[in-house]
Amino acid sequence: MSHNTFGHLFRVTTWGESHGPSIGCVIDGCPPGIPLTEADIQPWLDRRKPGGSRFVTQRREADECRIVSGTFDDGEGPVTTGAPIAILIENTDQRSKDYGEIARAFRPGHADYTYQAKYGVRDHRGGGRSSARETACRVAAGAVARKVLGQDVAIRAGIVQIGPHRIEDDRIDFGAVEHNALFAANAEVVPAWAAYLDDIRKAGSSIGAVVAVEAVGVPAGWGAPLYGKLDGELASALMSINAAKGVEIGAGFESAALTGEQNADEMRLGDDGAPVFLSNKAGGVLGGISTGQPVTARVAFKPTSSILTLRRTITRDGTETDLRTKGRHDPCVGLRGVPVVEAMTACVLADAMLRQRGQTGWAFPSFSETQI
Amino acid sequence: MSHNTFGHLFRVTTWGESHGPSIGCVIDGCPPGIPLTEADIQPWLDRRKPGGSRFVTQRREADECRIVSGTFDDGEGPVTTGAPIAILIENTDQRSKDYGEIARAFRPGHADYTYQAKYGVRDHRGGGRSSARETACRVAAGAVARKVLGQDVAIRAGIVQIGPHRIEDDRIDFGAVEHNALFAANAEVVPAWAAYLDDIRKAGSSIGAVVAVEAVGVPAGWGAPLYGKLDGELASALMSINAAKGVEIGAGFESAALTGEQNADEMRLGDDGAPVFLSNKAGGVLGGISTGQPVTARVAFKPTSSILTLRRTITRDGTETDLRTKGRHDPCVGLRGVPVVEAMTACVLADAMLRQRGQTGWAFPSFSETQI
Amino acid sequence: MSHNTFGHLFRVTTWGESHGPSIGCVIDGCPPGIPLTEADIQPWLDRRKPGGSRFVTQRREADECRIVSGTFDDGEGPVTTGAPIAILIENTDQRSKDYGEIARAFRPGHADYTYQAKYGVRDHRGGGRSSARETACRVAAGAVARKVLGQDVAIRAGIVQIGPHRIEDDRIDFGAVEHNALFAANAEVVPAWAAYLDDIRKAGSSIGAVVAVEAVGVPAGWGAPLYGKLDGELASALMSINAAKGVEIGAGFESAALTGEQNADEMRLGDDGAPVFLSNKAGGVLGGISTGQPVTARVAFKPTSSILTLRRTITRDGTETDLRTKGRHDPCVGLRGVPVVEAMTACVLADAMLRQRGQTGWAFPSFSETQI
Amino acid sequence: MSHNTFGHLFRVTTWGESHGPSIGCVIDGCPPGIPLTEADIQPWLDRRKPGGSRFVTQRREADECRIVSGTFDDGEGPVTTGAPIAILIENTDQRSKDYGEIARAFRPGHADYTYQAKYGVRDHRGGGRSSARETACRVAAGAVARKVLGQDVAIRAGIVQIGPHRIEDDRIDFGAVEHNALFAANAEVVPAWAAYLDDIRKAGSSIGAVVAVEAVGVPAGWGAPLYGKLDGELASALMSINAAKGVEIGAGFESAALTGEQNADEMRLGDDGAPVFLSNKAGGVLGGISTGQPVTARVAFKPTSSILTLRRTITRDGTETDLRTKGRHDPCVGLRGVPVVEAMTACVLADAMLRQRGQTGWAFPSFSETQI
Repeated sequence: MSHNTFGHLFRVTTWGESHGPSIGCVIDGCPPGIPLTEADIQPWLDRRKPGGSRFVTQRREADECRIVSGTFDDGEGPVTTGAPIAILIENTDQRSKDYGEIARAFRPGHADYTYQAKYGVRDHRGGGRSSARETACRVAAGAVARKVLGQDVAIRAGIVQIGPHRIEDDRIDFGAVEHNALFAANAEVVPAWAAYLDDIRKAGSSIGAVVAVEAVGVPAGWGAPLYGKLDGELASALMSINAAKGVEIGAGFESAALTGEQNADEMRLGDDGAPVFLSNKAGGVLGGISTGQPVTARVAFKPTSSILTLRRTITRDGTETDLRTKGRHDPCVGLRGVPVVEAMTACVLADAMLRQRGQTGWAFPSFSETQI
Repeated sequence: MSHNTFGHLFRVTTWGESHGPSIGCVIDGCPPGIPLTEADIQPWLDRRKPGGSRFVTQRREADECRIVSGTFDDGEGPVTTGAPIAILIENTDQRSKDYGEIARAFRPGHADYTYQAKYGVRDHRGGGRSSARETACRVAAGAVARKVLGQDVAIRAGIVQIGPHRIEDDRIDFGAVEHNALFAANAEVVPAWAAYLDDIRKAGSSIGAVVAVEAVGVPAGWGAPLYGKLDGELASALMSINAAKGVEIGAGFESAALTGEQNADEMRLGDDGAPVFLSNKAGGVLGGISTGQPVTARVAFKPTSSILTLRRTITRDGTETDLRTKGRHDPCVGLRGVPVVEAMTACVLADAMLRQRGQTGWAFPSFSETQI
Repeated sequence: MSHNTFGHLFRVTTWGESHGPSIGCVIDGCPPGIPLTEADIQPWLDRRKPGGSRFVTQRREADECRIVSGTFDDGEGPVTTGAPIAILIENTDQRSKDYGEIARAFRPGHADYTYQAKYGVRDHRGGGRSSARETACRVAAGAVARKVLGQDVAIRAGIVQIGPHRIEDDRIDFGAVEHNALFAANAEVVPAWAAYLDDIRKAGSSIGAVVAVEAVGVPAGWGAPLYGKLDGELASALMSINAAKGVEIGAGFESAALTGEQNADEMRLGDDGAPVFLSNKAGGVLGGISTGQPVTARVAFKPTSSILTLRRTITRDGTETDLRTKGRHDPCVGLRGVPVVEAMTACVLADAMLRQRGQTGWAFPSFSETQI
Repeated sequence: MSHNTFGHLFRVTTWGESHGPSIGCVIDGCPPGIPLTEADIQPWLDRRKPGGSRFVTQRREADECRIVSGTFDDGEGPVTTGAPIAILIENTDQRSKDYGEIARAFRPGHADYTYQAKYGVRDHRGGGRSSARETACRVAAGAVARKVLGQDVAIRAGIVQIGPHRIEDDRIDFGAVEHNALFAANAEVVPAWAAYLDDIRKAGSSIGAVVAVEAVGVPAGWGAPLYGKLDGELASALMSINAAKGVEIGAGFESAALTGEQNADEMRLGDDGAPVFLSNKAGGVLGGISTGQPVTARVAFKPTSSILTLRRTITRDGTETDLRTKGRHDPCVGLRGVPVVEAMTACVLADAMLRQRGQTGWAFPSFSETQI
């Protein structure tokens, strides 16, 4: 993680502003020989892209990606070559509008003030670099990471809380996520949540959310103690998503109220002689290394900062003012966080897989290679 | 963050196992000319060290640190030279005992199984590299980081939750932490918490906790979007601490239940013309960059995994067994997390300060240099 | 330095292949507030671009760069914002031709065989990623680095040897470089060199060269011992240029034949009381840190590997063959190395400047701040 | 490469000053399960250590290393665990002497002035951090790197030039190096070189040297284009050695005088069907990736800067003076560079091996896995 690049062996660099001509990413360190075309990436971008329902911003972007380097077709379709994969996405719906007020005043909850304080200059058009638009690049990179991980690792996320409404752990069903516009991880909550969110939207307000993610199929052994722990890497990757304010692994903050007896995931041997955990409070990570159980995490998203209610703020020339953020916005930015959480998880895991392979020589153990 | 090193410009590398001859750290990139002796570090180590009360492990370590490089006394006392600062700490209380059972069986909740799975070998003596003993090195590095930050930045942490007992936000008093053996951030809770923890301890059980931390005096402008965000760096640094399972910044997971109106920290101008925030839901970070408000975070710690109750587990040669973890342990490992959370926060901030200075030329703005 | 990224604080990532749709670079960590448009970059690209004389490849590329992120015009012209600067360059003259033979056979001296051996796949079109075409991105990044360094640091390179013809050290005149198509660092050698190179070119052969570079105005104090030494960073940056086979700093390999008396650069005080070196065998670097004298280096370039003479080689399906490399090629690839050597030197220095500022708080000392 | 750490996956951090209590290194990222004790390291340290002959400094150091972390003996002897390997070496012969003059005056050719200019403070005792004493740590790390590389890769270096005396390429015999105190790569030159160096030594002077190194057994495929090229990594690693002023790969600077016909290493198939190069002008690296031929490099060392002849210099308080560097010094510091060049080469190769394995899944191809 270093400014606009993350990852160690599977490294992603992103660039671009909300209202610039384009955005993009460069993926370096990808293994060679992996079939890859835009068709592997576009579905994930389509899933993230705005304008898909009334619950997300009405900005309409085609979000068509183009791979402009790093693949080569030697007769059997394009495959990765080991060279950096550059992906470009044009910005097509940057409305030309009067940014006068936003250019002067700092929108509360946004990064306007901090960018100005840090850099002495800021691209105020649509949030510039701090816009959630950048997350399209993360999703594109995540699509490539999924190809690196292969079929054996499945990563799924969904909304498990929106405002005061929460899906209990034992009712989470990631299979429901693709079938509702709220990305809710349970089909039954959708009508009530939709009504709730409609009210929020009509009021010009916004609301926070929690996204849960799980990665199934990660073998035991990924992650690099002590400062490259799998959970530490996940924490920074997920916290780096726009509007994220908290990350927890496994039982997370609930762990604080557990006793050692409740928390320790006991072990037994399965029918095939392989280790079996009897619970997963650890969220699939012990000592920073994967256990072979599903890796589970949750990310808290704050409500969208752009709301219609007048808020008190100041301007860059040092006067007080009140500001109402008009424009096309998300009533619950967490919804759009779902594909991004998946993508960041995929990138972290692909990186961990390559690092594991680098240090030890194996990424996925065959049964006979199982190390215990 | 990379295996056993963290930080970009202020970089800390740690080494050593629980029962090896010594542990240590190397701090690279420290600015030159900073007065530094063991006396700057020892108090922080003393505060962390085990054996101080009945609430923590009875392992007794002198934890005496020695600075063996990176400082030079040219007549006015030792100062940092810009060269790597190596700090050594001897292990003096590694009891020689029979590790027979632990060597074979994987302690549930510990990293035994995952280290074995990853590396095919593990130093089972006291947890080896995965032992909380390593955190002494973090505390030593944090002491140096505090010197880099100087007097203007104050970092304080304390326990705000232990099991079901929680200190409400408006009752947190970091000033109380130094005056009770529980590191509790409120004096009034101490008797009840002590009784509760005594019960846990006598039952051979353990309990989780939440540590809150705040850093006051961080100017607006530190942090490097997008993948070196101040909160992202904090998240990985804090999640890398032994037993940490969750990290939140500012309102954290509570943000999920807030509306945009509740969450946006409004701004006004103070009497001196400087920007003033009217609340701090953001935890002092917007868009990954510090706002000038206190940087606040919370870390969830799971209960100590070593408990006296028999737990089901397996052995490395593939048999099922039941294990009771005897020995000297902490009923609430979160207590000892307090100085470590402070130390990691200090290291992240020192690194952010140097990176800010590298990119922009300033670390602390003078009033006239204020960038807005 | 890490695969396709180099630099620590001023970081450059490049992507793109010789015959892909475009190439580009992302510059991360650039200080904010620096005026920057394509007009700052294009002249350097024009100077490097092929097709300019009969001495370089006849491939014709417009090499027009577009800055698509990282700058913002807030009314006084575009300035850097601190966000990543992405620069795109279209490939316009990738001739569609039959690559049949090159696709099968490994061109001796080229990276064909090694890319195939490493990755199991290679983009054979024009050398793919290993093509010198990539150096356009380095030159673009170098142009930005020059802006970061400012007017006080001047970097100039030129050819000082071509085949057996060498310009003695005391006759090097970097002022001559811009006035001859051979980039020769002495005007008088040009007629003889041109005739010599014409003979090489007409014979379908090629020849090696040495490029010298100097950076004037670098203050004492840049560079980070021990493994981030200024000369170590220069060595890897310059050795990473296509066809480079040697790098030396100051007296370089000649040092091996010098005595300590000859080699030690003695010091005196100048009229202004500032330190003055009486010679510069060190090439402006002692102990990996700049001395304040000109930083001088030399880079050896091997002859272009593409020649018309039949060479023995093998094919990827394991047969022996003879190959003649037709196409548009440089008789002396070292000529085109001149702007690239300058650019890499600029990038290394900009990075060293920011790192120095990060660790110590200053980049250029004012007289009163001089540290001795 | 970053200040006091180098390597990407096989990472070495060193610390310590010439006259501090000890020096040491931390090796992170080492694969697990490799048998390792001090006995694997000590012979290499003994070979480097001063005091061994009249040709090197008379400082006498036991240079006894202790491994204090990262290995574990589970019954079959200590093996690496994957945790950081810390190695300590005590300084035992730091003579207490009057450093008065050196403390004030900058020794020409040394890093005294530049450390003072950069840091505003310097440990003047024996050169502090800039002393060649630090290279003991590199040699210790190199010993571990050799274990990682295994028996198949053999790395040997030797002196091929000392002052005006040079061993022609076709007379280099690395087998001779161990049998003479000059580390000369040819037995016949020893008497003349010894007499020459005796004269230098008696005159209180010093002389430069060139060290050649070759690594045999490196398979095709190691190295990471474009900014992690194997030759680029070697260049920075070797240039970072004290007193190094030039690095060349393969034909190096001689390449400048070669034609394309002379330079291109033609290929044929060997009796076993494997690729065979008919020459090795490339030094075993094409496009930054190993070819399978021996990797060959040469490093130029300047003469020891400490000489008995009075040299003009200045003091830190800004006066002119003349200085004679007394003490225990090497007449040819290049001699002691031989084991260090080998060690750095081993570290670079071990790192490249792990990176290759991380990205592609293999480090050493079996015959059937050969990628072409």
